Amino acid sequence: MNYSDLLVSTAKKRKSIVCLGLDPILDKIPIQENNLRKKIFIFFETILNEIVRKNIYPSAVKPNYAFYAQYGFEGLYALQDVISLFQKAGLIVILDAKRGDIGSTSLAYAKECFGFFNADAVTLAPYMGYDSISPFLKFDQDKGIYVLCRTSNNSAVDFQDLVTDGSPLYIKVAEKLCAWGSGNLGAVIGATYPHELEEILLTFSKLNKKVPLLIPGIGSQGGDLKSIVGLLKKYSYLPLHRINSSSGILYAYEKVHNVQYNIAAINELNKLNEEIEILSEGLC
Amino acid sequence: MNYSDLLVSTAKKRKSIVCLGLDPILDKIPIQENNLRKKIFIFFETILNEIVRKNIYPSAVKPNYAFYAQYGFEGLYALQDVISLFQKAGLIVILDAKRGDIGSTSLAYAKECFGFFNADAVTLAPYMGYDSISPFLKFDQDKGIYVLCRTSNNSAVDFQDLVTDGSPLYIKVAEKLCAWGSGNLGAVIGATYPHELEEILLTFSKLNKKVPLLIPGIGSQGGDLKSIVGLLKKYSYLPLHRINSSSGILYAYEKVHNVQYNIAAINELNKLNEEIEILSEGLC
Repeated sequence: MNYSDLLVSTAKKRKSIVCLGLDPILDKIPIQENNLRKKIFIFFETILNEIVRKNIYPSAVKPNYAFYAQYGFEGLYALQDVISLFQKAGLIVILDAKRGDIGSTSLAYAKECFGFFNADAVTLAPYMGYDSISPFLKFDQDKGIYVLCRTSNNSAVDFQDLVTDGSPLYIKVAEKLCAWGSGNLGAVIGATYPHELEEILLTFSKLNKKVPLLIPGIGSQGGDLKSIVGLLKKYSYLPLHRINSSSGILYAYEKVHNVQYNIAAINELNKLNEEIEILSEGLC
Repeated sequence: MNYSDLLVSTAKKRKSIVCLGLDPILDKIPIQENNLRKKIFIFFETILNEIVRKNIYPSAVKPNYAFYAQYGFEGLYALQDVISLFQKAGLIVILDAKRGDIGSTSLAYAKECFGFFNADAVTLAPYMGYDSISPFLKFDQDKGIYVLCRTSNNSAVDFQDLVTDGSPLYIKVAEKLCAWGSGNLGAVIGATYPHELEEILLTFSKLNKKVPLLIPGIGSQGGDLKSIVGLLKKYSYLPLHRINSSSGILYAYEKVHNVQYNIAAINELNKLNEEIEILSEGLC
């Protein structure tokens, strides 16, 4: 199935556009287990079991490569385990790896992400241009690709806001994505910048393109959910997009007393799904 | 030792500014060995032994992460082996990984590259700005960082050449590197674009900064060695920089008859070292 169609059908099936970030932070995982790979796996397996038990799902999951790779091979084995675990449960897995290199090297990265790790989608960096993206586009047309467009961090302004011929760099990236893509090419846009999100949505709308968005930055980074959902509804088709939350869900137990981490996480996921459902007025 | 000082002293000791790219391409490795990790290790160990035997050294080595990661865990074990092998022989190891993410995630990548893999230097992507670079700068001030500035591939023009206030994006990146760095922050500039290299060197010169350059793109990509060395001599201090060659050296045996791959590789490395020495007129 085409990646955009998969996104839309999954959102409708799960009644969710939430992407659950799967970023292990060892100090925050409340499990007594010395084996790092096991500790990470048990943490996410317990959360997944609660997802299944309560039938409250996210609409994709997103492990960030760095959070696993920092722990060396044990971490990377855990990444492989976690991808496989969530895929077997029918969830879309977006590998957040922000790869990008010259053509032949990007092909090797596509083999890593789509071949070896078997992710359903991947995040890429745009700086090196089309030939760093195209090996991923050609590798498997059912796989998804999200290119960094306007990121959620403070220093996003350093280069992404530089203006050429009246348009900032992130709009130039957005325009190129429209030229290069065909349903499987999406964009990463931080929830912390609703004005920039609106500009980008307007660009896609003018060019008559439906570009799947991956939107991190709500919760601890401060993005406003109401504005984001409002903009997605106004300019696009909500079920095509994913709003990401990582630590706000995974480590929700830290903010409530005497609640097991898996229960606290799924309560938080449920809350986010419901908030978006109310804001979307039944569009999902 | 400060990374810039290490570059200069190593160049003088080795009489070389060549960085040898260590990119395994299984089909081109002429060794009968089914175990992938062993095959890659034996290939590079045999080449290193020839380097030591002939006392003809490169002045750094650069494994590209993608070429190992495409083969999964066996490839990544080989990467760890290869880094350790060349470090033990006293060579600077630049891990070409082109990482970049928001601050907390970039710190995890710094732990991966500098901690787990113990590389001496790393390549990074600039798109997300300062807070994606700073965790690497702060991790260990003796380690080196090369940020993509003007890359060697055809599609580099897509974004890197966009002009803001009279300057292309790669000059904006070059200026920021001068503002952020202090001897351990370098730039990647492709040898295929000597005009752009000159502009960047002029920028560094005007800002009175010595920024170590990592220059891929000679050989199969078509960069002209004479122009590159001429520009480095004119505007900067040659021993601070590294000119990279990967497949041109590693797989040199393909172009000569009846010569073992290790001997062909070191002959090619020697040729490149000598060409640069002649062009540099004894500056190395």
